Amino acid sequence: MRFGVLDDRLIAVLPDGAAHDVTALAGPPAGPAGPLQRLIERGRPLSAAEVRSAPAADVGGAAWDAPLPFPRKVIGAPANYRAHVAEMGNPNTIVEWGVFLKASTSVIGPGRTVELPYTDVRTDQEGELAVVIGKEARHVSASDALDYVFGYTCVLDITTRSTEDRSTRKSYDTFTPLGPVVVTPEEVGDPDDLALRCWVGGELRQDSNTSRMIYGVSRLIAYASSVMTLQPGDVIATGTPEGVGPLADGDEIVVEIERVGRLAVTVSAAGALPYGNRMGMPTA
Amino acid sequence: MRFGVLDDRLIAVLPDGAAHDVTALAGPPAGPAGPLQRLIERGRPLSAAEVRSAPAADVGGAAWDAPLPFPRKVIGAPANYRAHVAEMGNPNTIVEWGVFLKASTSVIGPGRTVELPYTDVRTDQEGELAVVIGKEARHVSASDALDYVFGYTCVLDITTRSTEDRSTRKSYDTFTPLGPVVVTPEEVGDPDDLALRCWVGGELRQDSNTSRMIYGVSRLIAYASSVMTLQPGDVIATGTPEGVGPLADGDEIVVEIERVGRLAVTVSAAGALPYGNRMGMPTA
Repeated sequence: MRFGVLDDRLIAVLPDGAAHDVTALAGPPAGPAGPLQRLIERGRPLSAAEVRSAPAADVGGAAWDAPLPFPRKVIGAPANYRAHVAEMGNPNTIVEWGVFLKASTSVIGPGRTVELPYTDVRTDQEGELAVVIGKEARHVSASDALDYVFGYTCVLDITTRSTEDRSTRKSYDTFTPLGPVVVTPEEVGDPDDLALRCWVGGELRQDSNTSRMIYGVSRLIAYASSVMTLQPGDVIATGTPEGVGPLADGDEIVVEIERVGRLAVTVSAAGALPYGNRMGMPTA
Repeated sequence: MRFGVLDDRLIAVLPDGAAHDVTALAGPPAGPAGPLQRLIERGRPLSAAEVRSAPAADVGGAAWDAPLPFPRKVIGAPANYRAHVAEMGNPNTIVEWGVFLKASTSVIGPGRTVELPYTDVRTDQEGELAVVIGKEARHVSASDALDYVFGYTCVLDITTRSTEDRSTRKSYDTFTPLGPVVVTPEEVGDPDDLALRCWVGGELRQDSNTSRMIYGVSRLIAYASSVMTLQPGDVIATGTPEGVGPLADGDEIVVEIERVGRLAVTVSAAGALPYGNRMGMPTA
């Protein structure tokens, strides 16, 4: 089953393509976190029969919103593909780095615009598989970890290459495009064997497979849950393969993950400032 | 005015010491984020007359809860005191590092227990002034920044000394003791001139003043708001002075900040594991 959000309505798409508006089944209005967050917090999956009982929805040409516009946590996996570790010139991997956090205010939906913050600092795309947590997880074992997954989606972990802590370099507003839909595990199959490609301005920059992750999805969830309690709707960006590179005004970024989806956004430098003006200087 | 939370009730304490239960004035039940979050989101300060019209509350010997048990963001200021920079052996300061993020799941209230995660990794106290954001802030100037402050409280930024990204080292559950109450700006005065002391096991480890911050409160808010939109109830830990050191089972940690408050917690190693068991191994 696939879940997407359109104009604050929660849409479920069955494997046969039938789309239904299941907003009412998700419970009372969810506020800024959106209706999918509410459904996940409800803690009980929707059956196909429940979905079919809901009003049909027209999703032809849908311009999906971010499925989770305001996750409680956005967790990232640094240096989780060896070929990306090699291109970055630091030998440490996720084994040494652990995980990092991105600000939830950085999430945007498909079709939206990534805003480059600086005129004179490189900002890169990083295409990644995202895991959406389905229930509270603390110190779970790798063998149990997939039981805590609600589904999978695509994410771009946009990143500046400068001196700051990862949380800064990855948390500028618009730096976490997410979506278009969250696909439940039975449609995805093995999350550690998914082709992943990412294009920027029509150029294929990243062409890999999640089988090359150092921590696969199970181990990553288990590890993260040994640090911090994972909560329903938390998003884990699983790390990026090699091929990151600079973004420029007008670029289209597309990340496509087998059986998960295709997320496209554009890039704008219209609001970019010189790095030296970042210290709370007036922006005019 | 001071705001604290007792058993999910929001208590306001006036300068004359009169305490009133203002939960109803904060709006409808706020869920896990708690009633102070709701009051802040309401966007309008409570007047002393409104507070006096609310039922009186008994706060004698109060065991306050965390005033904001689940902030949207917990932002930290690394290396923001020069003498702490010196003791850490890395010349970079907040100017190079920017800010970092802590998981909101790490927040605990006064009187609670900091749980050491590892038997064989050093874990330190870092006593700090915390700023609570009152309204959405994006690209605000340093000269306007204090207009975005709801109030101030005490925070401990508990930190492991290991190889991981700051977000990991500072986000273990229980690693962000916060409170006891949030004091509004007119009672605090200049936030860049507050004596700050921190004791561990009765030993005075940190004895400084917020006047020694590299980025004072205004500049820190301005800078953070140039990276990520700040939202009502976001917490900014403003960095720690020199004197950080290892915690041990049974320690009491106390941080006391002039005109802001005194926060005390205890330390337990009861659940600590060998670092080598962190990778999602069964905990039994």
